[in-house]
Amino acid sequence: MIYLYTPQDMAAYRDALQQALPGRALACWPAAVDASQVAHAVVWNPPAGFFKGMVNLQAVFVLGAGVDRILKRDDLDPAVPVIRLTDAGMAQQMLEYVLYGVLHVQRYMGQYRRQQAQRQWQPVAATPAAQTRIGVLGLGEIGGRVAQALAAMGYAVAGWSRSGRQLPGVEDFTGDAGLPALLARTDILVNLLPATPATRGLLDGRMLSLLPRGAALINAGRGEQLDEAALLGLLDSGQLRFAMLDVFEVEPLESVHPLWSHPAVLVTPHIAAMTLVTTAVAQIAANLQSLQQGLPPQGLVQRGRGY
Amino acid sequence: MIYLYTPQDMAAYRDALQQALPGRALACWPAAVDASQVAHAVVWNPPAGFFKGMVNLQAVFVLGAGVDRILKRDDLDPAVPVIRLTDAGMAQQMLEYVLYGVLHVQRYMGQYRRQQAQRQWQPVAATPAAQTRIGVLGLGEIGGRVAQALAAMGYAVAGWSRSGRQLPGVEDFTGDAGLPALLARTDILVNLLPATPATRGLLDGRMLSLLPRGAALINAGRGEQLDEAALLGLLDSGQLRFAMLDVFEVEPLESVHPLWSHPAVLVTPHIAAMTLVTTAVAQIAANLQSLQQGLPPQGLVQRGRGY
Ligand SMILES: NC(=O)c1ccc[n+]([C@@H]2O[C@H](COP(=O)([O-])OP(=O)(O)OC[C@H]3O[C@@H](n4cnc5c(N)ncnc54)[C@H](OP(=O)(O)O)[C@@H]3O)[C@@H](O)[C@H]2O)c1
Ligand SMILES: NC(=O)c1ccc[n+]([C@@H]2O[C@H](COP(=O)([O-])OP(=O)(O)OC[C@H]3O[C@@H](n4cnc5c(N)ncnc54)[C@H](OP(=O)(O)O)[C@@H]3O)[C@@H](O)[C@H]2O)c1
Repeated sequence: MIYLYTPQDMAAYRDALQQALPGRALACWPAAVDASQVAHAVVWNPPAGFFKGMVNLQAVFVLGAGVDRILKRDDLDPAVPVIRLTDAGMAQQMLEYVLYGVLHVQRYMGQYRRQQAQRQWQPVAATPAAQTRIGVLGLGEIGGRVAQALAAMGYAVAGWSRSGRQLPGVEDFTGDAGLPALLARTDILVNLLPATPATRGLLDGRMLSLLPRGAALINAGRGEQLDEAALLGLLDSGQLRFAMLDVFEVEPLESVHPLWSHPAVLVTPHIAAMTLVTTAVAQIAANLQSLQQGLPPQGLVQRGRGY
Repeated sequence: MIYLYTPQDMAAYRDALQQALPGRALACWPAAVDASQVAHAVVWNPPAGFFKGMVNLQAVFVLGAGVDRILKRDDLDPAVPVIRLTDAGMAQQMLEYVLYGVLHVQRYMGQYRRQQAQRQWQPVAATPAAQTRIGVLGLGEIGGRVAQALAAMGYAVAGWSRSGRQLPGVEDFTGDAGLPALLARTDILVNLLPATPATRGLLDGRMLSLLPRGAALINAGRGEQLDEAALLGLLDSGQLRFAMLDVFEVEPLESVHPLWSHPAVLVTPHIAAMTLVTTAVAQIAANLQSLQQGLPPQGLVQRGRGY
């Protein structure tokens, strides 16, 4: 049996799964089922205790790219394979999100907005794309696509990953030594790393200070990778110019949080790349078929590295 | 002799021209010269009477893509060839500008900004690029590049021109009958037409009302093509959702103008695509060489059609 939990659009996922997998038994939380009968779970942030009693669970399909929260759970047997979405329409959305932030900075849109409020007509000399240095942290399914597309658009792009990745037009940085080198040449830093023990707190005050004065940050990875207090300090001092943030240490962002009202910050409610029902379900159905045929599924998470 | 006038960066243009055309006599306005000795003028919006006495003028090089103002002058002999810039780095800049506006609309960035001001965390279901219908008016050097790039990014793009143009992924509309048809299927209208007698006042209340309810407008063509009062009315009624405007009936936009303070309007001070000194001068130098060799220059304006 497949057991489904999503915080929203549950009916849409149910219908899509039933259509993609006709004849399969499917139940939706909170339907009472015999937990030992659940062979596959399809979930996004299920409630605590969700996996309790699922002693015959063969795989967990996560309805997103990030698996940080699922790997931390104490009700899920670490031996059960966790399978995440790979791209599934999210890379294109992320590219759109990042591009908006890049253009906002490169084309001085924040400044024009402030001038508009003052009824002030004042052109600013534009910075050509080729002189706009973008640094992308994480060159996986999403970051790799974003870095490559920005390079194709003419930006000066560098990327950082664990194992290194050759992408056309993208300067390649890796490892502990690579990060400071990438930061030093970056005008717009784009974080698309997965949250793992190794990336937690990575963007602290010391790291962010390695960016050139006037640099900007786009964070669409995970909130726990960024020291929000340090960021606010660097924005206040003018060391950093702008931040576009989609993810936060605590989500929803607390209503008293100073990021909401900072003039140099754009807050979005974790919408950079949303899971698309049809694409996600098609990928899950294909992976279920692979598993049945004894083939490796796409997006199998490696617990050891945390992504 | 070459005589130069630009409203800004005169020294930079002078130096670049001298370097590109060593040995050529070059004077900069307002230097007193024998007007009859001026063979070539390189200009952007020169003062009234600038061309007086230039009886041996062989060509005017315009430091921009739009020639509407130069063609209307009464001090310039209509027999003198007018040569404009073709692309010269402007198409890329225009693509950036238009893309920002498209993403602003498609990804609900205005709504997220309003929500941020209220400290409100509220995701909005995203509209996929493939379901975002963009209509580009003008498929020339600039509009053609913009339409093609947006189509390559996955948007549903249609274009409108006088003679029709087949571009990969771009639906082709032409002529008087084509415009209403394009408007009826367009969520984001992008105006990149040249200002001519035929396009003056084209985007009036009647035309703009043919856009579906909730559509948006990006105007980076010319201000006189758009009825600003009609636009304001349609924004107020909610028929149109958003406008990003770079050009205006009167520039600089008058400080009392209601567009400045309209919540659904983004005003930029004619910066969508700025002339780049080096690229512009290289194109002018190449065209001067063509003229000397009796070859047709690139960007020769056809006075009869007005562009
Ligand atoms: N805000 C949103 O709406 C949203 C939506 C979707 C995803 N996301 C975030 O985006 C993340 C990335 O997704 P994805 O599908 O691209 O993941 P992915 O395919 O697993 O790619 C992860 C990339 O990060 C690199 N990386 C991981 N740990 C690293 C470390 N310690 N040092 C350097 N590089 C490291 C990896 O290096 P290797 O190539 O060497 O393995 C890889 O290039 C997700 O985990 C999620 O947090 C956010
Ligand atoms: N805001 C800024 O910063 C900025 C910067 C640069 C340019 N611009 C504006 O952009 C305009 C376009 O530049 P460009 O270099 O792309 O010009 P272009 O190469 O001459 O292209 C003009 C396009 O408009 C079409 N067109 C002209 N009159 C038309 C009519 N009556 N009906 C339908 N289509 C018509 C032409 O059709 P055909 O293909 O059939 O000839 C052509 O596709 C400039 O004139 C200027 O006003 C603005």
